[in-house]
Amino acid sequence: MAKLRYGMVGGGPGAFIGDAHRKAISLDGTAELVAGCFSRTPEKTKEQGEALGLDPERCYANYKEMAAAEQAREDGIDFVVIVTPNNTHYEIAKAFLESGIHVACDKPLVTTVEEAEELKKIADEKGLLFMVTYTYTGHVTMKYMRDLVKNGEIGTVRTVMAEYPQGWLYNENDWGGKQGEWRCDPAQSGRVNCLGDLGTHVENAVATVTGLKIKRVLAKMDVVVPGRKLDDNDQILVEYEGGATGINWTSQFAIGCDNSLRLRIYGSKGTLLWFQETPEEVTLIREDGIARTIKRGYGAVTPDAAKYGRLPSGHTEGWLEAMGNLYDSFGACVLAKKEDRFTLDLIDYPTIEEGVAGLKYVEACLKSSENGNVWVEV
Amino acid sequence: MAKLRYGMVGGGPGAFIGDAHRKAISLDGTAELVAGCFSRTPEKTKEQGEALGLDPERCYANYKEMAAAEQAREDGIDFVVIVTPNNTHYEIAKAFLESGIHVACDKPLVTTVEEAEELKKIADEKGLLFMVTYTYTGHVTMKYMRDLVKNGEIGTVRTVMAEYPQGWLYNENDWGGKQGEWRCDPAQSGRVNCLGDLGTHVENAVATVTGLKIKRVLAKMDVVVPGRKLDDNDQILVEYEGGATGINWTSQFAIGCDNSLRLRIYGSKGTLLWFQETPEEVTLIREDGIARTIKRGYGAVTPDAAKYGRLPSGHTEGWLEAMGNLYDSFGACVLAKKEDRFTLDLIDYPTIEEGVAGLKYVEACLKSSENGNVWVEV
Amino acid sequence: MAKLRYGMVGGGPGAFIGDAHRKAISLDGTAELVAGCFSRTPEKTKEQGEALGLDPERCYANYKEMAAAEQAREDGIDFVVIVTPNNTHYEIAKAFLESGIHVACDKPLVTTVEEAEELKKIADEKGLLFMVTYTYTGHVTMKYMRDLVKNGEIGTVRTVMAEYPQGWLYNENDWGGKQGEWRCDPAQSGRVNCLGDLGTHVENAVATVTGLKIKRVLAKMDVVVPGRKLDDNDQILVEYEGGATGINWTSQFAIGCDNSLRLRIYGSKGTLLWFQETPEEVTLIREDGIARTIKRGYGAVTPDAAKYGRLPSGHTEGWLEAMGNLYDSFGACVLAKKEDRFTLDLIDYPTIEEGVAGLKYVEACLKSSENGNVWVEV
Amino acid sequence: MAKLRYGMVGGGPGAFIGDAHRKAISLDGTAELVAGCFSRTPEKTKEQGEALGLDPERCYANYKEMAAAEQAREDGIDFVVIVTPNNTHYEIAKAFLESGIHVACDKPLVTTVEEAEELKKIADEKGLLFMVTYTYTGHVTMKYMRDLVKNGEIGTVRTVMAEYPQGWLYNENDWGGKQGEWRCDPAQSGRVNCLGDLGTHVENAVATVTGLKIKRVLAKMDVVVPGRKLDDNDQILVEYEGGATGINWTSQFAIGCDNSLRLRIYGSKGTLLWFQETPEEVTLIREDGIARTIKRGYGAVTPDAAKYGRLPSGHTEGWLEAMGNLYDSFGACVLAKKEDRFTLDLIDYPTIEEGVAGLKYVEACLKSSENGNVWVEV
Repeated sequence: MAKLRYGMVGGGPGAFIGDAHRKAISLDGTAELVAGCFSRTPEKTKEQGEALGLDPERCYANYKEMAAAEQAREDGIDFVVIVTPNNTHYEIAKAFLESGIHVACDKPLVTTVEEAEELKKIADEKGLLFMVTYTYTGHVTMKYMRDLVKNGEIGTVRTVMAEYPQGWLYNENDWGGKQGEWRCDPAQSGRVNCLGDLGTHVENAVATVTGLKIKRVLAKMDVVVPGRKLDDNDQILVEYEGGATGINWTSQFAIGCDNSLRLRIYGSKGTLLWFQETPEEVTLIREDGIARTIKRGYGAVTPDAAKYGRLPSGHTEGWLEAMGNLYDSFGACVLAKKEDRFTLDLIDYPTIEEGVAGLKYVEACLKSSENGNVWVEV
Repeated sequence: MAKLRYGMVGGGPGAFIGDAHRKAISLDGTAELVAGCFSRTPEKTKEQGEALGLDPERCYANYKEMAAAEQAREDGIDFVVIVTPNNTHYEIAKAFLESGIHVACDKPLVTTVEEAEELKKIADEKGLLFMVTYTYTGHVTMKYMRDLVKNGEIGTVRTVMAEYPQGWLYNENDWGGKQGEWRCDPAQSGRVNCLGDLGTHVENAVATVTGLKIKRVLAKMDVVVPGRKLDDNDQILVEYEGGATGINWTSQFAIGCDNSLRLRIYGSKGTLLWFQETPEEVTLIREDGIARTIKRGYGAVTPDAAKYGRLPSGHTEGWLEAMGNLYDSFGACVLAKKEDRFTLDLIDYPTIEEGVAGLKYVEACLKSSENGNVWVEV
Repeated sequence: MAKLRYGMVGGGPGAFIGDAHRKAISLDGTAELVAGCFSRTPEKTKEQGEALGLDPERCYANYKEMAAAEQAREDGIDFVVIVTPNNTHYEIAKAFLESGIHVACDKPLVTTVEEAEELKKIADEKGLLFMVTYTYTGHVTMKYMRDLVKNGEIGTVRTVMAEYPQGWLYNENDWGGKQGEWRCDPAQSGRVNCLGDLGTHVENAVATVTGLKIKRVLAKMDVVVPGRKLDDNDQILVEYEGGATGINWTSQFAIGCDNSLRLRIYGSKGTLLWFQETPEEVTLIREDGIARTIKRGYGAVTPDAAKYGRLPSGHTEGWLEAMGNLYDSFGACVLAKKEDRFTLDLIDYPTIEEGVAGLKYVEACLKSSENGNVWVEV
Repeated sequence: MAKLRYGMVGGGPGAFIGDAHRKAISLDGTAELVAGCFSRTPEKTKEQGEALGLDPERCYANYKEMAAAEQAREDGIDFVVIVTPNNTHYEIAKAFLESGIHVACDKPLVTTVEEAEELKKIADEKGLLFMVTYTYTGHVTMKYMRDLVKNGEIGTVRTVMAEYPQGWLYNENDWGGKQGEWRCDPAQSGRVNCLGDLGTHVENAVATVTGLKIKRVLAKMDVVVPGRKLDDNDQILVEYEGGATGINWTSQFAIGCDNSLRLRIYGSKGTLLWFQETPEEVTLIREDGIARTIKRGYGAVTPDAAKYGRLPSGHTEGWLEAMGNLYDSFGACVLAKKEDRFTLDLIDYPTIEEGVAGLKYVEACLKSSENGNVWVEV
């Protein structure tokens, strides 16, 4: 029985990502959906609310009404999940924060660093939690790698080859349907497409695993497929504080790549290899050159990572489980807040700070690329 | 909002498999858990029921009481999920069938062919549905392979190399905890261990994908790890009706194997390769020798298989999704029964017939092995 | 500069295997080809000898003449390489042994156990060396696995899954050209096809790596592809002395399999995995379940295996190098004989004893299969 | 019997690369080694010549003497193989060209573009052949990819991700022995280490397969391992003429990477994937996303590539075979020159033009890196 109640903004009929968030939250019974504003069209919200078994009274015509009404209820929602298009995140998140409600928001967080920092400020002032759902960091193997790096198992990180190519927008005559069209449209996406959608995941994944902070970037953001107006291939040189280097690559026309977030981290004493499409395993190479494949569920996995596994080794867990893991930690924090026993070390999910970092990364890359591929400090 | 209500027998605190079934059912909101008899100890049932938010009145002290009470209620359960140890399946399933309640039961179904056939008879007479949860057949890629074979893409099947080795019981000083102990104990498992647990999955997977019926088997069931009393390594020659041959191998001491169900199907025009630990892909080899890796979500996947996918390619789905797929079809059938529009072609899950086939396979193998590895007709 | 001279029987124009032996021998300059009887047709022998730069006087019309003439010469050949069809090996090998010339002979050695034992007897009596070219045992990684097993790294071997499927004869309308036709023809191959060609490699590979001796076999040798007269799919249960078990599988119709000799060796403390088509690496799995991929050239490789490597790690060596390794050891032994410093521990190649073992294996399998798949002692 | 005679400069006792060239040339009996100046120390040349069975008269004290003497002989060498340290290539190659002898020279060709162009000029004027041994382009699969691109199978190339990381110099306390020390020493290697050794291979591999010409580069050449003085990690943005882009990465400290030249070529209609350590296969992905693994020896391989295979599919060929393929074509051209039937289309090996291109690439990268990672035209 869920101990928390949540509401959702976005995620109307047919929306893939809203459904995925609901499934991920229900996986461990973290919270129960009790309110929603699923669409700009009230009828659709009604329809979706009904399909989900919601009290019609809590199916709201707009998010502002929802924030106010839920704040007022004694049994109001503990947190809201925002899964609308990016350019609406800012206002919605602000409304709920101002109503004293914790927020889980899809990435990329907002469209400017300023907006992100403002949200962070409000959340901080009000003592509210703010999760940005960088799903991939939820994988047990990602958390395990983070621990391996932290524990010095690969020594000092020297260079990081990170990438996230996809292929679904390779065809100039196919704009990727509803999902692709808004991403490729400057009116809806602003100045950035591929880098915002995929590049922020890359940046966040590297930061999460290695703990490295980006010092500066040199970005080449190209518009390649004929007819496109925004970047669909980004090749970026990175320098981290402390001297490590790296390359981040994202693409939308790499035929044969589906969701191919890949990390290759080379340290002074070892190497870590990870691929999102086989997320149940990590390869660790030590100085002897021997590649060790370690699977989620093995004794070698650190307890802080292993605890997120639900099934024995070989019973594959996937993308929903990764997202579920984020909500497990977020839910535990919301509950701790509610029960007045919250401490910072409980946080094991991407926060708004990481959302801010993502936007700073994107802005620096844009500046670099627009100025002819020069180094720009982040 | 779930349109169906279900109850569970077994799945008390700490039981992995009951929790997995609940998660799989909740994945698509197929049914709501409203009743249970989670343990032989009423206190534990209470505890679990409370944790799951159940009406205490519907937390039953024993399964007979539960069957009777639920049958009597107007809002009684639509189906029951049985996740107790194998040797109790027969009586429990019988009680619910006799109360007119559809049944989903973990595998292996029961312990003798006779029991299985009796359950089948009752279900048939009462027009009740009976699912046996051979989880692996729920993978989209399994359903896709089934279609490929059916459509003649690999010609006539000639030989099938099927295996399901595990390694968790390799150590003579480690009996695998609670999970392993009852499996290795003749008092609880009867005459068979590894073959019942893993071998039936192999038999069912091959039957599901190829449609082949086993004609006869020649089985070598060995007790290998010192101290064990039941088979922990089974190597079986198979002849199928129509002339195809095969080898089925299962083991519990194959170090490095987790849940390694693997199918390699060689036909007159092509080959299919599938591995449970990377269930998102199938390899199809045609006469040109070129290995084609096809992923769930690709256009090549047949619609009858593809429809079970929830996420785009590259967003990995795993074991829970496979089980969820079984419940999707089973739930749809239960609903159709309820709404009086059921037809046989709606069934896309393993039925009690497949449970019976599994038991016949096990019995034939036992007879073969006990008689010095001779051919035994199934 | 080669310190040894050799002659060849077989390997005329267009013969793949003779050319391969010559290339393998020349790889390290082990021996110089100085004499030959390359074909039954003297003109072809002439032609081939000329192409290879041989003294025409040493291009012989038949092997008997060659054996006699070379024995008589002061600069006669140190060893002969026999690469003719199997059913001629016996007489040719005998002639050279009786002329006091060391022999390297392609596998399968001869067609009956009796012939094999007679050759062995002659060689032993005359103190002559006799190599049977089971090429795959020459891989550095095979020798490394042998050492790992010997050193107890995987504990006691429990079961061995060994296989060597090929696909080139899958098509009933294609008999595989010159190579396939004689193999599929009872008049030329006797009672066995696939098992002789591939099964002996499997038997030898397992014996080499594990040191296990086969106690008995239960063989199912099937003629599957329409029109074939000899076995093209062999599925064999094996029991080894000491209690280990195994399955050996060979096939000629497994579409997508090229030269797919694969060993999976499961011991009480670990597992070894090896695949002939990626012969530069071995996977060792210890009790922690972690798969360790070790490549030829790594420090972990035992010196007795590592010494056969010619190139640094990552500079791939292949099939010719494996055969070259056999000749390196054989050549070293021939030279030691010549220089009167031979000792048995110099032998690191498959000898006629292994040829005899292969024939015993084939005969036991035939007997088992012809008697309805019953156990037959080897 | 070899129809050509060759001499070697370099390749004394213990030198890996000289031995490798000799093995590669002998693989198909392309040419016979008859002369050499294997070392700067005449005694070592004598020793090596004797070991190789050479006429002592043709073991020369220095390369100039060798060039003159061989030019003067009626049975003089047809070509010379130069396998000395890079900074000596220029003078040696010049001496042989001026003596009218064809040249095969290890890469990187020389140390400046000027030297390279001068050698090219001499060779052109004298009508002499000049091969630069970029070994990897000799793989059958590389030639096959070249044909696939040329035939439009992947449409227009859009971006190329190319890399060649190694790990052998990761340890600051280990300078890689004789091989590593001169590479890391500015006195012997000039201004460049990793990029000269590995980066030129990357540049050449991409050029060979795609036919693309580099327009400009933006290079980040880093000295990372403590104590090193020359680049050991190079991350380079590339723009090709016609608009394609790419990243070239080379490293010497990437633990776990041996000889990991990898190409990933993304076109408008498909993708090609290739990895040097599994050189027997290519992966081709078409618009349907399906990855097709094609092996050397399959019917799909284009005849111009397939003709270089020596063994059936599954009988692995490796690095020596790749180098042997270069010499096969070079030898055929030398023979055609000798027999006065040479035409340009016979050339299927890397020529001095490709050597020049490599040097231009290195110089542009150096300039870019030294100027703060700016674009430099090649």
